[in-house]
Amino acid sequence: MEVYEAIRTRRTVRQYKPDAVPESVIMKILRAGRWSPSSSNSQPWNFVVVTDPATIARLAEVATQGPFIADAPLVIAIVMVPDAPRPQLDAGRALQQMELVAWDEGLGTCFVGVRVEEQQVGVKEILGIPDDYHLITLMPYGYRTGQPSGRASVPRKPMSEIAHRNHFGTPYETA
Amino acid sequence: MEVYEAIRTRRTVRQYKPDAVPESVIMKILRAGRWSPSSSNSQPWNFVVVTDPATIARLAEVATQGPFIADAPLVIAIVMVPDAPRPQLDAGRALQQMELVAWDEGLGTCFVGVRVEEQQVGVKEILGIPDDYHLITLMPYGYRTGQPSGRASVPRKPMSEIAHRNHFGTPYETA
Repeated sequence: MEVYEAIRTRRTVRQYKPDAVPESVIMKILRAGRWSPSSSNSQPWNFVVVTDPATIARLAEVATQGPFIADAPLVIAIVMVPDAPRPQLDAGRALQQMELVAWDEGLGTCFVGVRVEEQQVGVKEILGIPDDYHLITLMPYGYRTGQPSGRASVPRKPMSEIAHRNHFGTPYETA
Repeated sequence: MEVYEAIRTRRTVRQYKPDAVPESVIMKILRAGRWSPSSSNSQPWNFVVVTDPATIARLAEVATQGPFIADAPLVIAIVMVPDAPRPQLDAGRALQQMELVAWDEGLGTCFVGVRVEEQQVGVKEILGIPDDYHLITLMPYGYRTGQPSGRASVPRKPMSEIAHRNHFGTPYETA
């Protein structure tokens, strides 16, 4: 899929087929994360690839924001090293590349934040993540149950509201 | 360009041809940002599109981390609304989609952080960005001076160091 088309058609997906994701596809997703740029080339990411059904079930119980995790055959936890200069931003860059490659492979995902302190503690305990690492998200992945509609993404704010020309407050409009 | 190929070949670019970036290409880059997912669908991004040479010259003077901004025909400031739930992470997701679409169009960019307080103040003053907005980065864009090498990205940490199977500390290795 062309990059612009992947970006245009991508949707957040919370329902997954039970089919396992092949190792070769998992590796493509991991490479897409590893190839992302990072602040001062710090490469601060760690990816915990979870395919064990019992572990996924436990994660779904703790991460109550994302109960659909329970139905995913694959969960990847994005974890940043303790001294990462921009853990949130660099995580965003990596996981977006991962999501786009996954989309191209027929998979969907949905960001699950696990921001609540007790969820952080619970997920770290289940996955053995050291306390001082930044747990950013659990990303469940699975094959999509429906066909992409081919329409552009769900409604967005109008471009005139979010894009400015040369100075904030001057709407960007094409000539 | 296929999405995986764009991600594989993308490089950080700090040298730009002086050629203007057509409005149609700028609009594609903006759409790629606007189509990115965001926390609770907050759509917190603002994009200040700077093509005025005098303004770009002033930005380059203030953002000393990115003197190469001076040579770019286009700079896009990524600015998040004051109440954005995850400004850094959502910025990372949007700007990565923008970078990939730009790459596909023959353009390159480099993240410039402007983290220092006086740089934040200076850039906000130049662009008229309200104090309470989050200024995340200035992204200079321009046509690349060289050909992509076709090689995979610059050296990265080995996958065995950053990818774990089911539990942190258990290296992920394909079967």
